[in-house]
Amino acid sequence: IKSKLPDVGTTIFTIMSQLANEYNAINLGQGFPDFNPDEKLVSLVNKAMLSGHNQYPYMPGVQSLRIAIADKISQLYSQSYNPETEITVTNGATEALMSSILSVVHDGDEVIVIEPCYDSYVPCIKLAGGIPVFVSLTPPSKNNPAYSIDWNKVKNAITEKTRLIILNFPHNPTGLTLKSSDLDAIEDLIKDNEIFLIGDEVYEHIVFGNKPFLSLSTRDFLASRSFVISSFGKTYHTTGWKVGYCSAPKALTAEFRKIHQFVVFTVSSPMQYAFAEFMKDPATYLNLSSFYQKKHDFLYNGLLNTRFKPIKSEGTFFLLADYSDVSSANELNFATELTKKHGVTLIPVSAFYKDSSALSSNNNLVRFCFAKKNETLEKALQVLSTI
Amino acid sequence: IKSKLPDVGTTIFTIMSQLANEYNAINLGQGFPDFNPDEKLVSLVNKAMLSGHNQYPYMPGVQSLRIAIADKISQLYSQSYNPETEITVTNGATEALMSSILSVVHDGDEVIVIEPCYDSYVPCIKLAGGIPVFVSLTPPSKNNPAYSIDWNKVKNAITEKTRLIILNFPHNPTGLTLKSSDLDAIEDLIKDNEIFLIGDEVYEHIVFGNKPFLSLSTRDFLASRSFVISSFGKTYHTTGWKVGYCSAPKALTAEFRKIHQFVVFTVSSPMQYAFAEFMKDPATYLNLSSFYQKKHDFLYNGLLNTRFKPIKSEGTFFLLADYSDVSSANELNFATELTKKHGVTLIPVSAFYKDSSALSSNNNLVRFCFAKKNETLEKALQVLSTI
Ligand SMILES: CSCCC(=O)C(=O)O
Ligand SMILES: CSCCC(=O)C(=O)O
Repeated sequence: IKSKLPDVGTTIFTIMSQLANEYNAINLGQGFPDFNPDEKLVSLVNKAMLSGHNQYPYMPGVQSLRIAIADKISQLYSQSYNPETEITVTNGATEALMSSILSVVHDGDEVIVIEPCYDSYVPCIKLAGGIPVFVSLTPPSKNNPAYSIDWNKVKNAITEKTRLIILNFPHNPTGLTLKSSDLDAIEDLIKDNEIFLIGDEVYEHIVFGNKPFLSLSTRDFLASRSFVISSFGKTYHTTGWKVGYCSAPKALTAEFRKIHQFVVFTVSSPMQYAFAEFMKDPATYLNLSSFYQKKHDFLYNGLLNTRFKPIKSEGTFFLLADYSDVSSANELNFATELTKKHGVTLIPVSAFYKDSSALSSNNNLVRFCFAKKNETLEKALQVLSTI
Repeated sequence: IKSKLPDVGTTIFTIMSQLANEYNAINLGQGFPDFNPDEKLVSLVNKAMLSGHNQYPYMPGVQSLRIAIADKISQLYSQSYNPETEITVTNGATEALMSSILSVVHDGDEVIVIEPCYDSYVPCIKLAGGIPVFVSLTPPSKNNPAYSIDWNKVKNAITEKTRLIILNFPHNPTGLTLKSSDLDAIEDLIKDNEIFLIGDEVYEHIVFGNKPFLSLSTRDFLASRSFVISSFGKTYHTTGWKVGYCSAPKALTAEFRKIHQFVVFTVSSPMQYAFAEFMKDPATYLNLSSFYQKKHDFLYNGLLNTRFKPIKSEGTFFLLADYSDVSSANELNFATELTKKHGVTLIPVSAFYKDSSALSSNNNLVRFCFAKKNETLEKALQVLSTI
């Protein structure tokens, strides 16, 4: 069989979670909470099933949920999306990424992705017939202990064929967020052409340091060119329920829904009704940053007492740490051995690069997921402090 | 925006369901039950959520569910699939169709589809870069009051570029099923080439006349070339839960999963655990044919007392009826007017043809869905008997 995706194997997240299970390791790898969603949310799903919401919901999503999403975006980002024509509920952010990429990328179009990046972007681009063009974040160095982005490098990557730029902030795996000057730079990138944006903003409600999150939706011009994607899985500790959404201007949403309706047709009805009800209370998402800030700080501070050198994260479930004082193995080997020998599972940052053997992708960094119970983080720190 | 699917609008099922809502009509259009799933199944979902199955399940599907599916296929069709490497749980049959087509169809490949056909096949083929090649069922005539299939026409459509044939039995919208001689003919079609098959078998458990269903899986050779797709939505009255599966030999499944993991990554965890438990009792699916046979017969017999001329269906949720004694309008106009004026919603069969204006696609036929409460069917028959 001639493969459509010859370079693709099983995603690193699945591989590492399987390895964690096999070795009964503490899993700080794949990005999912090891605790449960709010009981009220669970009971709302049950209520929806019992009240008969078990058949195909309306293809773009349940109306009350689309309205609740539009209200939230309006409150937080002062952007108004029409729930009828500009918001679509998706089978998680994964489906939203696939459907948005398939809906605008034609054969031979170039798509700029910023490395390190989430591993689904490139296969989606290839399936759409597009060509990924990579721009790397500047990795941490002695002088500059965190990743940073150089928008000039992005500008230089733009050609006549560029159709789309995929932006993911808060950024997985580095935890970078955008400042207002970054949004200026992004506006500048696309003001003289017809390039679209994807804003993968699944961690929009997990931003540290009491800063407001700067969504692409906060700027009218950026919103007019963007698919903005979010995830109820990340926000409500329900990654296994597979519900997310995509907000985009009418013309983009029209194309998006053409694809969406044939990719999955529609999304779980009982879950949609439950989220619609649950998210009416803004506290359900406004408290998330401080909830995760505590976990971030606990892990960060704990790692300071080990030979790992943690990097502060500005958002997401994740922080990175340098392990060069512990081992000189490459990132994949180090992560694999750590699971096998010490029972702690992390993700090698090289997995977020197109060519994990390249020098640029081997900075002796591993990704920690702190969306875990405090006792899980404590146990992991105990182990790591001994090595 | 240059559209990737310029010919595609909103699916007919969504359009007709919206019209039905607007006119408060009795909806015998879109294929979904208007009754609830078994209470035990609902409580199993609740139990799964409460026992903590709320995060990403294993990418190919929850193990106990894949094992239960393999066991069922082995019992019913005497075919053995390895649940580890040959069965994948999907976001409904829709996603399974998209992922299987994307995984084997390359630029310029031809895919044979049999008209009338479900409206997602052709957009999936086009997104994969393939070329749909249409073969029509022979429509009903005075001498032959049902649709029939001429395998020679399929054989003649095969070229060097043919990569895939999509077969959907029990067939939507005609209700046709396959006989053993049909399976012989299909074997003959692909024995001297490397063509793959998709068996869209979402109605596998709804077959009338006490006949066993002849899945492609019943033949080793066919199974070795096929993606066989089914749907828990159709089987367990849960079309809105979006769970289905795809069985395929190891090499095909490997390609399928490469796509699946980037299309949706994984499928609702609580629903998967619930289905795994529920389907352990074979009565949950073995009784479905007789349950729906009664509804079929009730609708068929009722229509004999109207000016519609029903055609017996051999399986599925559907039967067709000729309305030429009622109206000479084309199928779409007739269905639209019937909703608006009489409050009964049906699907025009022309919607299942590539060119709904072609003569061949206008046989004065409408599709009735009888997956409805008896009282719903009764009410509809009452209205129809007056026109
Ligand atoms: C879809 S599995 C990956 C989860 C995730 O976002 C991550 O671990 O980065
Ligand atoms: C996915 S909506 C269509 C449901 C269906 O199978 C039909 O009505 O034919």
